[in-house]
Amino acid sequence: MNALTGRFADLKIDAFLVSAPPNIRYLSGFTGSNALLLVTPSRSTLFTDPRYTIQAGEETSGCAVKTARGPLLAEAAQLIARRRLKRIGFERGRLLFDVWQRLKDALPLGASLKPVGPVVEELRMIKSPGEIAHIRASVQANSLAFEAALPRIRPGVRESEIAAELEYQMRRQGAEKPSFDTIVASGPRSALVHAQPTSEPAGANQLLLIDMGATRNGYVSDMTRTLFLGRPGRKVRNMYDSVLMAQLAGIAAVREGVTAEQVDRATRRVLRAEGLDRAFVHSTGHGLGLEIHEPPRLGRKDRTVLRAGMTITIEPGVYMEGFGGIRIEDTVVVTAGGCEVLTPTTKEFIAL
Amino acid sequence: MNALTGRFADLKIDAFLVSAPPNIRYLSGFTGSNALLLVTPSRSTLFTDPRYTIQAGEETSGCAVKTARGPLLAEAAQLIARRRLKRIGFERGRLLFDVWQRLKDALPLGASLKPVGPVVEELRMIKSPGEIAHIRASVQANSLAFEAALPRIRPGVRESEIAAELEYQMRRQGAEKPSFDTIVASGPRSALVHAQPTSEPAGANQLLLIDMGATRNGYVSDMTRTLFLGRPGRKVRNMYDSVLMAQLAGIAAVREGVTAEQVDRATRRVLRAEGLDRAFVHSTGHGLGLEIHEPPRLGRKDRTVLRAGMTITIEPGVYMEGFGGIRIEDTVVVTAGGCEVLTPTTKEFIAL
Repeated sequence: MNALTGRFADLKIDAFLVSAPPNIRYLSGFTGSNALLLVTPSRSTLFTDPRYTIQAGEETSGCAVKTARGPLLAEAAQLIARRRLKRIGFERGRLLFDVWQRLKDALPLGASLKPVGPVVEELRMIKSPGEIAHIRASVQANSLAFEAALPRIRPGVRESEIAAELEYQMRRQGAEKPSFDTIVASGPRSALVHAQPTSEPAGANQLLLIDMGATRNGYVSDMTRTLFLGRPGRKVRNMYDSVLMAQLAGIAAVREGVTAEQVDRATRRVLRAEGLDRAFVHSTGHGLGLEIHEPPRLGRKDRTVLRAGMTITIEPGVYMEGFGGIRIEDTVVVTAGGCEVLTPTTKEFIAL
Repeated sequence: MNALTGRFADLKIDAFLVSAPPNIRYLSGFTGSNALLLVTPSRSTLFTDPRYTIQAGEETSGCAVKTARGPLLAEAAQLIARRRLKRIGFERGRLLFDVWQRLKDALPLGASLKPVGPVVEELRMIKSPGEIAHIRASVQANSLAFEAALPRIRPGVRESEIAAELEYQMRRQGAEKPSFDTIVASGPRSALVHAQPTSEPAGANQLLLIDMGATRNGYVSDMTRTLFLGRPGRKVRNMYDSVLMAQLAGIAAVREGVTAEQVDRATRRVLRAEGLDRAFVHSTGHGLGLEIHEPPRLGRKDRTVLRAGMTITIEPGVYMEGFGGIRIEDTVVVTAGGCEVLTPTTKEFIAL
């Protein structure tokens, strides 16, 4: 927590009330769902409810634990009063309007609330070697699950059955859960960027898009592969090649010192040359770690400078309504001279 | 949406900007993750991004769809300006502080923001017959999954493997996903109210607590059963009987017209008579539907009057640090004269 309290003078705050669960986990180790963490330079206090008394004692380090039956906000406000803390930072992008209002009302006279930006998220952008090891383990579990499920994928198997198999295999590989709702989309449905698996069977001579990630030790992975169930024709092979070239160009653009938007431009440039840029309707990627979407966003206007130790996805895609979509995505870690692609799964066009 | 716009005069608003995804889904049918819904008495508009263009067209009814590459807030503010809307309600318990601030800054001169409480959540408390059918289907999938997984549960199988099997079976029964992180906790870990499954094996002659729910067609179920892997001794049998009596007393207390806290008192009274009330560290239950935790909360101080068509859980539990915990939970629907227990799974003490 020293990296955080070291910024208090800059932020003009005496204490920081952290409310976002992944930020609380990052700073204190606590994984429960109901908590507040009051960070001050001298000591920090985790507030949670009695359901978590035992768990909080086991998980946390570097902070006192206070469990309370009533609202955690009121407990935090009492401690703020007792310790005569004045300028209380809060996470402006994480606190709900009405919680902010109740907190404001609960504060003692003389104490005030200061909106603070994503400072914990900024600390979290650069992963420690331990965190990268967790993400690597998550990527491994995810890719092994994909390979284990491949033999079951054929025309006629429902999208939902394929998703069930992928998620079951993830857990067999040590994942706690999928890191987001697994996407399995056949044929024209693959053009829906966030399609939920349906009870429709995967079609013969159709695209099959699979976007999956595993959570392991709290850390996530993210991978997309697009397969073809049959023998792909020339149009679809060309489309695949274009997306793959764009994805490889994105990976080649990653290194410490470039900006997030430069990487986005690299994939977009390839797809423009192929006449497919208008079918690429999302950004090139995103950071990931304790959450599936973390800064930076590899898209237009994000000027975050990439640093060694950042973990990001590279995932261009093209989508044609009524025909289908192709997306190829890896999880990579930024290094001084480039990046390491963590995802070991082949990117050859798999035809089953 | 008429039930909502009918309240606009009371709420002193001309338009309501809905931001919570389950509320947007309830009102418009749209299931995507990034959306805003501007409701006005004359017409409503769903804002989403280009990833969802096709999906939004397919899913929504009763509203116009506008997709935008930029921030959805700015789009909504433009429409508010064009239509000269003045008093804009927002969901005070759902909107993040900084979104509220950006929205305030984006609004045209003369328009103002009014914090509005959980009015959509209140509408959602009483389920339609169609919604109850979805919840019933979810409960069925969940209980069938539990039964299908039972033969695999024995001492030595890891908690995480049991969770994987339960979740795989849910999907085989038609669920989209678990409705929350499945809890499988053996022995002393069952005293952790929200224990995550570990890679530790389920112990012989130990309690095994399983808390699981399925999401099907977007609607959830919630069930807890506590098993014993071996022959339970007298202490644990007595504890189980006490919790079961409390759970049955809770169910018996449910009917249209009683308050949520009356049901909570009914379970607590039984556990007090058994000398176990101090080991019951949470409330008796909660509403559920599109979300796993919805109002009402069946706990102290919730005076919500139960109405026919509400779907709630009844789940008392007792927890002894170092020994273990026992919880028994069903999903029930409130009726005029009592309630229907939807969960078909036996509540006899299962010894495997």
